[in-house]
Amino acid sequence: MNEAASTLSLAGRYRYVRAATEALASPLSPEDQTVQSMPDVSPTKWHLAHTSWFFEAFVLAPYRSGYGRFDDSYAFLFNSYYERMGSRHPRPERGLISRPGVAEIERYREHVDDAMSEWLSGPLEGGIEDLVELGLQHEQQHEELLLMDIKHVFSRNPTLPSYSPDGSDGRSTGHEGVAPAEWIEHEGGIAEIGHDGDGFCFDNERPRHDVILRPFALASRPVTCGEWLEFMEDGGYSRPELWLSEGWGAVCSGRWRAPLYWSEVDGEWSLFTLHGSRRIDPLEPACHISYYEADAYATWAGRRLPSEEEWEVAARMEAQPGSGIGSAGQPAMGRRGAVPEWSGVVAALHPRAVGTSSPLMGDVWHWTRSSYSAYPGYRVPAGAVGEYNGKFMVSQYVLRGGCCVTPCGHARLTYRNFFPPSARWPFTGVRLAADR
Amino acid sequence: MNEAASTLSLAGRYRYVRAATEALASPLSPEDQTVQSMPDVSPTKWHLAHTSWFFEAFVLAPYRSGYGRFDDSYAFLFNSYYERMGSRHPRPERGLISRPGVAEIERYREHVDDAMSEWLSGPLEGGIEDLVELGLQHEQQHEELLLMDIKHVFSRNPTLPSYSPDGSDGRSTGHEGVAPAEWIEHEGGIAEIGHDGDGFCFDNERPRHDVILRPFALASRPVTCGEWLEFMEDGGYSRPELWLSEGWGAVCSGRWRAPLYWSEVDGEWSLFTLHGSRRIDPLEPACHISYYEADAYATWAGRRLPSEEEWEVAARMEAQPGSGIGSAGQPAMGRRGAVPEWSGVVAALHPRAVGTSSPLMGDVWHWTRSSYSAYPGYRVPAGAVGEYNGKFMVSQYVLRGGCCVTPCGHARLTYRNFFPPSARWPFTGVRLAADR
Amino acid sequence: MNEAASTLSLAGRYRYVRAATEALASPLSPEDQTVQSMPDVSPTKWHLAHTSWFFEAFVLAPYRSGYGRFDDSYAFLFNSYYERMGSRHPRPERGLISRPGVAEIERYREHVDDAMSEWLSGPLEGGIEDLVELGLQHEQQHEELLLMDIKHVFSRNPTLPSYSPDGSDGRSTGHEGVAPAEWIEHEGGIAEIGHDGDGFCFDNERPRHDVILRPFALASRPVTCGEWLEFMEDGGYSRPELWLSEGWGAVCSGRWRAPLYWSEVDGEWSLFTLHGSRRIDPLEPACHISYYEADAYATWAGRRLPSEEEWEVAARMEAQPGSGIGSAGQPAMGRRGAVPEWSGVVAALHPRAVGTSSPLMGDVWHWTRSSYSAYPGYRVPAGAVGEYNGKFMVSQYVLRGGCCVTPCGHARLTYRNFFPPSARWPFTGVRLAADR
Amino acid sequence: MNEAASTLSLAGRYRYVRAATEALASPLSPEDQTVQSMPDVSPTKWHLAHTSWFFEAFVLAPYRSGYGRFDDSYAFLFNSYYERMGSRHPRPERGLISRPGVAEIERYREHVDDAMSEWLSGPLEGGIEDLVELGLQHEQQHEELLLMDIKHVFSRNPTLPSYSPDGSDGRSTGHEGVAPAEWIEHEGGIAEIGHDGDGFCFDNERPRHDVILRPFALASRPVTCGEWLEFMEDGGYSRPELWLSEGWGAVCSGRWRAPLYWSEVDGEWSLFTLHGSRRIDPLEPACHISYYEADAYATWAGRRLPSEEEWEVAARMEAQPGSGIGSAGQPAMGRRGAVPEWSGVVAALHPRAVGTSSPLMGDVWHWTRSSYSAYPGYRVPAGAVGEYNGKFMVSQYVLRGGCCVTPCGHARLTYRNFFPPSARWPFTGVRLAADR
Repeated sequence: MNEAASTLSLAGRYRYVRAATEALASPLSPEDQTVQSMPDVSPTKWHLAHTSWFFEAFVLAPYRSGYGRFDDSYAFLFNSYYERMGSRHPRPERGLISRPGVAEIERYREHVDDAMSEWLSGPLEGGIEDLVELGLQHEQQHEELLLMDIKHVFSRNPTLPSYSPDGSDGRSTGHEGVAPAEWIEHEGGIAEIGHDGDGFCFDNERPRHDVILRPFALASRPVTCGEWLEFMEDGGYSRPELWLSEGWGAVCSGRWRAPLYWSEVDGEWSLFTLHGSRRIDPLEPACHISYYEADAYATWAGRRLPSEEEWEVAARMEAQPGSGIGSAGQPAMGRRGAVPEWSGVVAALHPRAVGTSSPLMGDVWHWTRSSYSAYPGYRVPAGAVGEYNGKFMVSQYVLRGGCCVTPCGHARLTYRNFFPPSARWPFTGVRLAADR
Repeated sequence: MNEAASTLSLAGRYRYVRAATEALASPLSPEDQTVQSMPDVSPTKWHLAHTSWFFEAFVLAPYRSGYGRFDDSYAFLFNSYYERMGSRHPRPERGLISRPGVAEIERYREHVDDAMSEWLSGPLEGGIEDLVELGLQHEQQHEELLLMDIKHVFSRNPTLPSYSPDGSDGRSTGHEGVAPAEWIEHEGGIAEIGHDGDGFCFDNERPRHDVILRPFALASRPVTCGEWLEFMEDGGYSRPELWLSEGWGAVCSGRWRAPLYWSEVDGEWSLFTLHGSRRIDPLEPACHISYYEADAYATWAGRRLPSEEEWEVAARMEAQPGSGIGSAGQPAMGRRGAVPEWSGVVAALHPRAVGTSSPLMGDVWHWTRSSYSAYPGYRVPAGAVGEYNGKFMVSQYVLRGGCCVTPCGHARLTYRNFFPPSARWPFTGVRLAADR
Repeated sequence: MNEAASTLSLAGRYRYVRAATEALASPLSPEDQTVQSMPDVSPTKWHLAHTSWFFEAFVLAPYRSGYGRFDDSYAFLFNSYYERMGSRHPRPERGLISRPGVAEIERYREHVDDAMSEWLSGPLEGGIEDLVELGLQHEQQHEELLLMDIKHVFSRNPTLPSYSPDGSDGRSTGHEGVAPAEWIEHEGGIAEIGHDGDGFCFDNERPRHDVILRPFALASRPVTCGEWLEFMEDGGYSRPELWLSEGWGAVCSGRWRAPLYWSEVDGEWSLFTLHGSRRIDPLEPACHISYYEADAYATWAGRRLPSEEEWEVAARMEAQPGSGIGSAGQPAMGRRGAVPEWSGVVAALHPRAVGTSSPLMGDVWHWTRSSYSAYPGYRVPAGAVGEYNGKFMVSQYVLRGGCCVTPCGHARLTYRNFFPPSARWPFTGVRLAADR
Repeated sequence: MNEAASTLSLAGRYRYVRAATEALASPLSPEDQTVQSMPDVSPTKWHLAHTSWFFEAFVLAPYRSGYGRFDDSYAFLFNSYYERMGSRHPRPERGLISRPGVAEIERYREHVDDAMSEWLSGPLEGGIEDLVELGLQHEQQHEELLLMDIKHVFSRNPTLPSYSPDGSDGRSTGHEGVAPAEWIEHEGGIAEIGHDGDGFCFDNERPRHDVILRPFALASRPVTCGEWLEFMEDGGYSRPELWLSEGWGAVCSGRWRAPLYWSEVDGEWSLFTLHGSRRIDPLEPACHISYYEADAYATWAGRRLPSEEEWEVAARMEAQPGSGIGSAGQPAMGRRGAVPEWSGVVAALHPRAVGTSSPLMGDVWHWTRSSYSAYPGYRVPAGAVGEYNGKFMVSQYVLRGGCCVTPCGHARLTYRNFFPPSARWPFTGVRLAADR
């Protein structure tokens, strides 16, 4: 939650987050909300239903006496991956389901909201508040996924629709306008990382623990599109010696020549955005790159990716008032109307030129070289909620920071996002590190 | 065209056919119209757009001076397979395209209809009428495809939606109510098949030519669900000796145990229909079977499939007044309103019990043992229209007759439908033949 | 059997055919005999074992009292596709089986040969002779397959090994040396095709029956490599309008630019043969083409493929003494030594320039436009032998004639070979036909 | 190298290692040596050639004046993955290459050995010794791979051949004979791991560096087959809550019910070994399990996998004289004859009952929870040799210890083996850890 919103009551925050999700879906037609463009992507209306199911299945059904489920089939249709909650519809087939339609899912949301609002207007038993908070954080994660996913859906349409029109054509005055990255130096030693128990965090951010660091430096900003073009022009996508073996396999089989959503027309590079297609802006952070590409770029640049420990320690050094870290978006108030547009929910629909937003909690997620795994002493929580994070701790890499479509105030310094190293459809970028 | 409709002017028939397609789509939400459940299936809204593009691309654009295309991108999006008309969107990705949406495609149809109606209200140059007629026949083929396809789409939804509610639960009084099939005997010899030039036909029905037939017999009605259950109970799907080698491969890889859309719950068989799920009616024709299954059934029964020559000759013997062959559906009149429901377009949404409809031009297509190939002397027509039939003359088998969702009056005795031997989603059944 | 061989006793012919198979395998190392380069291909040692299993399973075990099977596991390993003979090893995994090795399979052959020779030295009960004859014809089919298959195996080796060295570099003096194809004219009418009962034939060649033919003409020789180069130079592989839809799909997905085994180096085309790689000879028949390519070529040339009926009728017109049709290869005598080389078994390892061999029973199989199906009145034989042909009568096309690696005397005018339309590794070519 | 061997001169050790590889191949026929049973597996003769190419390409060709390559095509055929050494034959197609055959590869090995032996008999320039040592270590890795791979090849043969006959039927007196695992306790704190620079190590074992450990305990022995049976009987393979999400996907898609090579016949479990098939011995370490299975077992047992840091620190505590860690196998002397059997190269062909070998450097590799990545300060070496380890540092997990088919003396406490989490064909087991 952003700072303003965090002053709201739980009931108020519930209304805010729920309305925010609907605001993000509001520019989309029923047809738009139905399509699944690849197995990783979910249809918009599935996101709308699943986040409601989360409250129904984990909060209302078990704890709110008298609650009646909206539709018994929804437990099958809208369970994402919770084995303990029973069998469910296969993920790659979410786009085959035209019914329930958008209008019925809207009624589902209202049904859940009515029950929740009534409940939240009174005192809650212990533990329920934590579950509600988890449900809200969960829904915010899906707000970001919704935007990532619809961007991919639109990118597969030859007419390249725009989620939200925007006057800019994306071309800034030139790359010469950006100063070279500086280095945030750290002398190494023992440091603490992980969440310290104040405020909400996910289980995977705990326990806070000591780590040993060698002296290192972290770049003051992410790699820009202009720098990425230099990498490309220097044969970045055709020199296997720069790549991890598995990454080079992805380059060859996927015929990668540039980041996802980039396309070359008549020798000039454009990229597809939620505002439609536009020319590359050299000052923007390079975005939609896989771990493989991030690593290859770092090798080419004679640097490396930071570990998540290095990232967190360096980020904490920078976390000063005015740095933008932890800063708030605009507050919002209520259901249906109060949060009319995406601009009340996320900072931007596309990464902004470096220098215009926080360098660490920036406009693209930063790949780290750290495999996603349990912190020392981590224990999986009991029950179905225990499936939230722990069972994904293999074959993925940690990303830190946040991105332009992360809901305002949702991320934090200790936040651990994760994706497989081949993922390109999230808003991912690279922040270089170096040994000292 | 059905008989009544065939008395209409070309302009009237144009209005009728176009309205009929829209009537079939009318029970479907925008979400329903967007989904593609397998590469063979097209979304409903794609059918609505493609049939309009056919008139635009083959009639209006080349021949109607002053016609302005509705949207230049549609030539790419809605060309199905006409290589001569330029590149096009890949068929398996039709379900990824949310825009243009249903409303915009409706406007596209109106744009084309306005231009066509104005044109058809006056005299037409030579040759244009034939193209318009081809466009109408083409659209009627897509009316059938639209229903086949949406049935498949709904079948993949765990909630098994109903295209059109129906009070019947599908269970008739019992199989004992149906008489054994009789045999239509033919003494063999030289006979003629193929269209003789009166009225519309597709190029693949010509030229009419002599064939030599051995004495044979054709069953008086298709195999029923009751008979199919006997085949299943006798191990039909677990005895490789009954099957073509390629068919047995399909049984094993697809784990076929029954026709498509059949499911067993607690020892009782149900099937999915456009009216939703219901119990098997033993009197109905067995439907949604592949060529492989048709052939295996015939082997099990000690019979064989008819050749398309045998089928056509026997069908002509039966084509008497009152036989229902060539009989008409209800006429219909105009755009938007005059044909409000599917019942004005097709005879039924599910095969009716044998005896209640024409045996030859019946409620299921009849697989023949004839590979789909050119008649002797056939020549592919010039131009893009030449891609209509000829280029599919490999690896497919001919089906004859028509089915319950074939638009009334569309098929005829010489009509050659075709599908690959693995296809199960059309309304396909089996009519046995035997040597004499 | 060739004519000389056909004068041999059954025992003598048994020895001849068995020795011939071993002669074909003799240039191959144990390693060569182990490899399976695609699911359609079988390892050489599998062919050697399977043909022995055929005699063991269909002749010795059921009818020769006292016969002891060599190894019980062989019924599983070396059954090809006979469902009635029990379960068997999956075809695509034949190349995973290193043991039994070549030496043990040699002992298996000797074991079967000893039992057969002793049996054949005395009088046989009725019906056994037919089974032995079928076993020999079956083995001759595998002799051709063995050569087709090892050619494919070697073609996948970057060092392009030679099965049999040959001094020729393949380049003849030039295409100008070949006369244009002439046309064998036929006035049409009713004709008979199929085997008439004299001498051995497969079940699929019966019953002999009448067919109606339109006036047609058949080219006097197959299309040559020189002519194929003209097709290629005229954009044959890049013009979709020339292709069947399914064929164009194969061109695109397989990136076909030329027949199988052709490769372009520095602007010059070479092809891989059983003698190794060599330059294209424009006078040779074009070989290793699929049905799709054959059809596209015919379309380009303004002609069509012949039906199998046309082919057989025209071939019979030509079948004169001295025409080479039905002519014999060299006789051979006994086991191990008498048939030391491939040249005693097949006419050539690569198609020879047109004019040097029989035009109809020539050096490449001729694709026909006829789908492989049962002749009118055909009935599948009883028992496992009934699986020999009938169950493959779907999705394949008939080829006629024979090819350079067909064992001498094995084929005949009524012989019906068949392959799927995508097959390219057999020695397949095209003979044009035209309407008259 | 084992201790005795390590006293040999470099020339002596060269002869020993090269002869050892050949000893491992000696029970295999040319057919056996040709087969590739899955993309991860290489044919035996490929291993024999590739290890020779390594010396030719990295030592002889660049540094030995006057050396003549044996065959220029081998650089393409036998390069495994060194991008800087040029293009190469695709890994999944190694089993398609019958030639060069076993005899020719034998000559290749002699050619390389002759050149190396002559060179090694005199003084070497600086740096060459390190390359030769790397080549020997590389060849020892392939000795283990050769046995892993041929085991997989044989497992795909329905006759289940035996690499080496053995009288044992594998069933020990019972699981009651094994004491419960004890716990090696560690109080945590700062410790050092990594190689310290004495003797050979791979680049990935450096630099030695400090780590922080929490108090933990490591089991005194690996999980046994008897314990694994308990896991299975408790529904281990059917309870998704025990599994990582990706692991459960592997269980479902691969239909895993037990470790690789286990099979159930009439309610009794057997496993396939290099001695053929035999009954499960409950006292043996469970082997051929994936990371997913290791993790699921640990979850079921209420424990976890150790980190590689924990493993190394605990192993060092145990590394006492007589503990078996670092202990030697038998020495061996020379080429062709001196190392006649596998028993002179590896300790056993199948894991022995716990208690009979070193607990830490034991008979199965131990999965750790550590993703394979660079140690802090690691730098990829320059040149093609730099591709040896660094480019695989993604999507794999570290295994520690060694296994029964690791060449005697090859592994060490700091050795980092790695495989993808789905790999089951190495000799992999699980050693539990716990927080304290």
